[in-house]
Amino acid sequence: MFSTRLPASLVPTPLSAAVAARRRRHGRLLDLTLSNPTMAGLAYPETLATAFSNVAALRYEPDPRGLRSAREAIARWQGSIGEPVSSDQLVLTASTSEAYSLLFKLLCDPGNRVLVPCPSYPLFEHLAHLDAVAVDRYTFRDAGRWMLDESELRASITPTTRALIVVAPNNPTGHVPTDREWDVFADLCHRHGLALIVDEVFSAYPLTAGVTHVPIPDMPGVLTFRLNGLSKLIGLPQAKLSWILVTGPDDLAQAALDVLDVIADTYLSVATPVQVALPVLLETGAEVRRQILDRVRSNLAHVASRVAGSTIDVRTPDGGWSVVLRVPCVGGPDDLALALLDRDVIVHPGYFYDLPHDGFVVISLLAGEADVREGIDTLCSLPLLQLA
Amino acid sequence: MFSTRLPASLVPTPLSAAVAARRRRHGRLLDLTLSNPTMAGLAYPETLATAFSNVAALRYEPDPRGLRSAREAIARWQGSIGEPVSSDQLVLTASTSEAYSLLFKLLCDPGNRVLVPCPSYPLFEHLAHLDAVAVDRYTFRDAGRWMLDESELRASITPTTRALIVVAPNNPTGHVPTDREWDVFADLCHRHGLALIVDEVFSAYPLTAGVTHVPIPDMPGVLTFRLNGLSKLIGLPQAKLSWILVTGPDDLAQAALDVLDVIADTYLSVATPVQVALPVLLETGAEVRRQILDRVRSNLAHVASRVAGSTIDVRTPDGGWSVVLRVPCVGGPDDLALALLDRDVIVHPGYFYDLPHDGFVVISLLAGEADVREGIDTLCSLPLLQLA
Repeated sequence: MFSTRLPASLVPTPLSAAVAARRRRHGRLLDLTLSNPTMAGLAYPETLATAFSNVAALRYEPDPRGLRSAREAIARWQGSIGEPVSSDQLVLTASTSEAYSLLFKLLCDPGNRVLVPCPSYPLFEHLAHLDAVAVDRYTFRDAGRWMLDESELRASITPTTRALIVVAPNNPTGHVPTDREWDVFADLCHRHGLALIVDEVFSAYPLTAGVTHVPIPDMPGVLTFRLNGLSKLIGLPQAKLSWILVTGPDDLAQAALDVLDVIADTYLSVATPVQVALPVLLETGAEVRRQILDRVRSNLAHVASRVAGSTIDVRTPDGGWSVVLRVPCVGGPDDLALALLDRDVIVHPGYFYDLPHDGFVVISLLAGEADVREGIDTLCSLPLLQLA
Repeated sequence: MFSTRLPASLVPTPLSAAVAARRRRHGRLLDLTLSNPTMAGLAYPETLATAFSNVAALRYEPDPRGLRSAREAIARWQGSIGEPVSSDQLVLTASTSEAYSLLFKLLCDPGNRVLVPCPSYPLFEHLAHLDAVAVDRYTFRDAGRWMLDESELRASITPTTRALIVVAPNNPTGHVPTDREWDVFADLCHRHGLALIVDEVFSAYPLTAGVTHVPIPDMPGVLTFRLNGLSKLIGLPQAKLSWILVTGPDDLAQAALDVLDVIADTYLSVATPVQVALPVLLETGAEVRRQILDRVRSNLAHVASRVAGSTIDVRTPDGGWSVVLRVPCVGGPDDLALALLDRDVIVHPGYFYDLPHDGFVVISLLAGEADVREGIDTLCSLPLLQLA
């Protein structure tokens, strides 16, 4: 009775079943997959709750792009990081997932294809299939650092490919494309008439000393949709406010915005109290962002120093909330994660992100410092690793 | 560069262009197409704005169906109208549009078909196409009252038809299916394995004396998705909170909920401050609902008495926020609406809702009483009608 847009099996994986079972028996586990900032022990100013109360929200003034006052607040924030934009270039959505859905509807007929990065958070294939869009993967290969496989990317472009998705910084690798890689993306998009979708939700979390923001280069010849939102920018996923920033050749960007207006007008998913609160949220939320940036930098420094000289290698991220470790172990896909679970530590095995399973593990840098210390100690103490 | 899921032309219709031009010249027009309750001069309790401020919203606890506390508030409301449900049968969405989108994804492969009512608000075709779903229409014919064309409906079912959409009360006719019509729907869904989608957003606005709620009959043999939300129920479209109530055979309803969980979990569009506020909103919003019900009933009574004995016939609605008038005029599709626009009155011509254009006009019952009085006076004074 139900559609084939969904995964064939909805049964939990053996690993997630094992995690659930152990959680029932042992209560709180040490969760190094944490990605929900509101559960990370950060101090949230109460203003982030009271800002939603505003009698201005008693009026509903639907605008397909979102309230101008909200878009102007985003434009001011963009200006403050040295990337001035016009509020007319912005379209609000309830989430980055919704932003992808609107863009798939804008760009792709059913059966058309989009290029998605690998490794990556396992979301794109599912999101695309729900909108009747197919995905092809292009790979960043591990060579001590992550390097785009250019020839694979070129070979993956078909006549029905419509868009190239870049996540910068990537989740989970934290990799930001090099200038050369951006040039390849821009060139291929230009040559094949692809739209470029840049997911920059982690751009406010650079992990390189002295950098305050991961910049996205100017690519004036390419129709580009840049995605960002409150979930990561101020650690407020529950506000359900993200946005699409449209850039590129003037006529093409304007045409895209005109059609996006029709699509966004069909759904209008962002609550007015949240839109009205946005200027206050963006201002007050900087305090949360600072805490998260301190947290991920401190955790990364600890992980790097703790494993230095051991058989574990850090794949140093350029930005983001996680770190990939190269671990000298072989075995079944879940062996390392299950060995850690036996010691009450939860991690995502590399294959969760389409990393080769025998030897990668992903650690959340958002988790509390004490948790990360204890978790990394546990990882380093595993017999498997001591033998290696 | 853009998909074919969208209307071929985004150019405004001549009528909407004429309305926009006259609005620029004359300022405020008498708008008998009003559907935004927050612009209707109603008194909204301030609690409906302050309820969104709650420190409980500083935690994000994602649940694919929505916060249990929010779903329990809806279940209590359903119980209060004599239709008890479990909070486990409910899935929150940001809007009824999103609810349709999730259901199309649940039920339809690309190219599958759904049955939509005619006349109806011109939304379904657009919504369905965006999700790569095709529509077939079935008709309620005008025979003084609205009557389902059963044989047309039977003939419209194809092997790839997946769902039947019923809007009760319908927008704009206000028609509620008769017992016989519900039986036909249930029988056809059962026989052809179709899901039944019942859009009951206007069910709290019965226009028959003594009726407090338009009931949806129990159809235990049919997988049914009932849609409702704050937009109409408490006149708060800007809160962006709607829901799907899943009923039907236990195993099928449970299977549908399991798959809906996966789809809803992909988007999670409803803001937490709104979910946290829902119990207060539902309670306080009853005051707005009472005002709207008084308004639409009073306006309907006035319209009926004003045109009594004239050449204009009222197609008495069973419920909802609008009334269809049968008007003795012929001419181009926009002639009547343009003649009224010349007198600063905006109406939707019948064809906007797929009514035959020469002789139907739709009037909002949500507009202020003075506006409706003046608008109906203007309609009755049109030379065309005086001649008829």
